[in-house]
Amino acid sequence: MYLRAFLILKNEDQAYISSTKLAERLHLNPPQIRKDLSYFGAFGTRGVGYPVASTADRIRGILKLDVAQKAVLVGAGRLGTAIAEYPGFKMFGFDIAAVFDNDQRKIGTKVGKNIVEDIAEISTIRQRNIHLAILAVPAEAAQSVVDMFVGCQIKGILNLSPSYVVVPKWVKVITIDIAMELGILPYYI
Amino acid sequence: MYLRAFLILKNEDQAYISSTKLAERLHLNPPQIRKDLSYFGAFGTRGVGYPVASTADRIRGILKLDVAQKAVLVGAGRLGTAIAEYPGFKMFGFDIAAVFDNDQRKIGTKVGKNIVEDIAEISTIRQRNIHLAILAVPAEAAQSVVDMFVGCQIKGILNLSPSYVVVPKWVKVITIDIAMELGILPYYI
Repeated sequence: MYLRAFLILKNEDQAYISSTKLAERLHLNPPQIRKDLSYFGAFGTRGVGYPVASTADRIRGILKLDVAQKAVLVGAGRLGTAIAEYPGFKMFGFDIAAVFDNDQRKIGTKVGKNIVEDIAEISTIRQRNIHLAILAVPAEAAQSVVDMFVGCQIKGILNLSPSYVVVPKWVKVITIDIAMELGILPYYI
Repeated sequence: MYLRAFLILKNEDQAYISSTKLAERLHLNPPQIRKDLSYFGAFGTRGVGYPVASTADRIRGILKLDVAQKAVLVGAGRLGTAIAEYPGFKMFGFDIAAVFDNDQRKIGTKVGKNIVEDIAEISTIRQRNIHLAILAVPAEAAQSVVDMFVGCQIKGILNLSPSYVVVPKWVKVITIDIAMELGILPYYI
């Protein structure tokens, strides 16, 4: 979250940000921000704030995002296409390096900068040094695609399918469900 | 997260789930699950598990999702369209009751079950009893749309734009950034 904030500030050409201004953007309080950033070894200057570019670099290093990370996307439907074209990945240092689908009408078409490949060829990602995957397929297909990922030495999966998936202990899964996130709001209002 | 799990189980027609099985799906450990669910007043039966439908209802009540919740979507681009057609909202009790855009080519077209309306007419949501909003517009438009939401008595905003937005204290904002979520993975792998 902090990395995202500093990357957005950098995009806006801001050189410094105070904990007060950052708190306003992140809906947090300034002491919390100073405490969190101090854990990262980042300390602001009174009256000046935190240097945006170097703080971004520092957090990027902690998160291992200072080296380019390739990811494969499976599912070239509406959500998958929106994801493939989302400019935010580049900001974080990600490269959507391959897109797969099982629909013959989609295979061979262009999605973002990639040509959609046949899911039957998924094993080729092993040779392409890809260890991250984004899953944007219907619920009923999710587990079978995840099993393919596991066989191809994928180590991290961002699951956007409305289902749960079972993986070995050495694979990390993060699930995003937009409806679930919306579901948090009524509790607060 | 627990509500989502129980709703998915209900969709799968499962009557009971053990903490062990639930732990496998949620990538948590069974004692944590038993502890969390006990806070909600939900207790499983040894050898049987938790009753799926009634536990879902219980959590739904706590989250105030037991009454139908209307939401407005602004931004009928690729991501907005994917969201409007996402079946998961219905499962949580949400109704995407209106869609707005400022693009004349999109206004009047159908997105999901809604006809896209002109953003100039956004103030009509006041009369339509809508207090939740989903923001799927480019970064540079985000703050101006949020200011409109605030003027229309929106109380909760799900922000999918790659930017931060400033709101009064009485408005709750949740931000989802798919790139940010992917950014968490390299740390773990």
